[in-house]
Amino acid sequence: MPYVNIRVTNEGVTAEQKQQLIEGSTDLLQRVLNKDPATTFVIIDEVETDNWGVNRENVTTRRQREKAGK
Amino acid sequence: MPYVNIRVTNEGVTAEQKQQLIEGSTDLLQRVLNKDPATTFVIIDEVETDNWGVNRENVTTRRQREKAGK
Amino acid sequence: MPYVNIRVTNEGVTAEQKQQLIEGSTDLLQRVLNKDPATTFVIIDEVETDNWGVNRENVTTRRQREKAGK
Amino acid sequence: MPYVNIRVTNEGVTAEQKQQLIEGSTDLLQRVLNKDPATTFVIIDEVETDNWGVNRENVTTRRQREKAGK
Amino acid sequence: MPYVNIRVTNEGVTAEQKQQLIEGSTDLLQRVLNKDPATTFVIIDEVETDNWGVNRENVTTRRQREKAGK
Amino acid sequence: MPYVNIRVTNEGVTAEQKQQLIEGSTDLLQRVLNKDPATTFVIIDEVETDNWGVNRENVTTRRQREKAGK
Repeated sequence: MPYVNIRVTNEGVTAEQKQQLIEGSTDLLQRVLNKDPATTFVIIDEVETDNWGVNRENVTTRRQREKAGK
Repeated sequence: MPYVNIRVTNEGVTAEQKQQLIEGSTDLLQRVLNKDPATTFVIIDEVETDNWGVNRENVTTRRQREKAGK
Repeated sequence: MPYVNIRVTNEGVTAEQKQQLIEGSTDLLQRVLNKDPATTFVIIDEVETDNWGVNRENVTTRRQREKAGK
Repeated sequence: MPYVNIRVTNEGVTAEQKQQLIEGSTDLLQRVLNKDPATTFVIIDEVETDNWGVNRENVTTRRQREKAGK
Repeated sequence: MPYVNIRVTNEGVTAEQKQQLIEGSTDLLQRVLNKDPATTFVIIDEVETDNWGVNRENVTTRRQREKAGK
Repeated sequence: MPYVNIRVTNEGVTAEQKQQLIEGSTDLLQRVLNKDPATTFVIIDEVETDNWGVNRENVTTRRQREKAGK
């Protein structure tokens, strides 16, 4: 009965990519811990880049800085 | 001081239904553990059906399959 | 397919009380949103009183203050 | 490697305020536990007022009541 | 910068299995979304079987029932 | 009514340090968003180093590697 919560920044994840994350996580839990896929939940949260911080800056700023090549 | 987080798929939950979940959860914590409603938080997260997986498939697909009677 | 996460302080919750929380939450989701109990998860987290703060103080201190009648 | 998740009601938090929460949380973890900002994540969730309950009522209702001066 | 939280019941997961979950999740995020492993967090929560409910019963009871062949 | 969840590795955080995290987070929310401390929750989760992964390795291994000066 695993519960997997994947949080990523909201930067254009497609439905197909989400499906791959769901399948991949479910298969991982089955392979490693023999968990039943029928009771494996995978929930993907897409978080706005203004709302995610790492290294004291939000990801919006980080992406702009990366683009500017700094 | 309980914290209750209810995650459901985003499929048309009304404000009235949300209010019933808030009241029901708060009353449950008070009845079972004598918790004070004044410091009981209930947070409802509505998750897009593309972002929720169970049994290796997302709920969007699951609903379509159910509708098709399979 | 709801996921319910109940977080309470670790202050002697019994297995019987936990079972009541599980049943009560599951029934609530079924009654309000017609969710299937077979795919309703309820997870209870018991948090040490040193690790839970409200109103700028941890619950260990709050309980001692309440006991002292202040 | 701390992970900080701040959940607040969705009531007009600005990007600048979010940035202050990110900086403040990261600095707090560094000051108190000497954690490296480079691996400190801060994620802010903004929750609709209909979806947040305290004291058996949702925050939408609470705000209306407060406005009405009751 | 993904954050992956895996919650499973506390039923003897070994350090080696946990490591496989960490590697598998990180690789999945890299493969599907090209996320950098250096800033991918994976946190595994082991939940007591009394504290996890599915289908209105806790997992302790469910396991006893399964053992008894019912 | 903010809810702050701080997750750190379980590496000897003292009750005094936890209290500092509780006070610091509560003050931050009050200063930035004018949130009432009376309804600000702070919950600290201490996660075993075997259960926390970053960069494809668990923190137990990372600490040993750091100690060995690699």
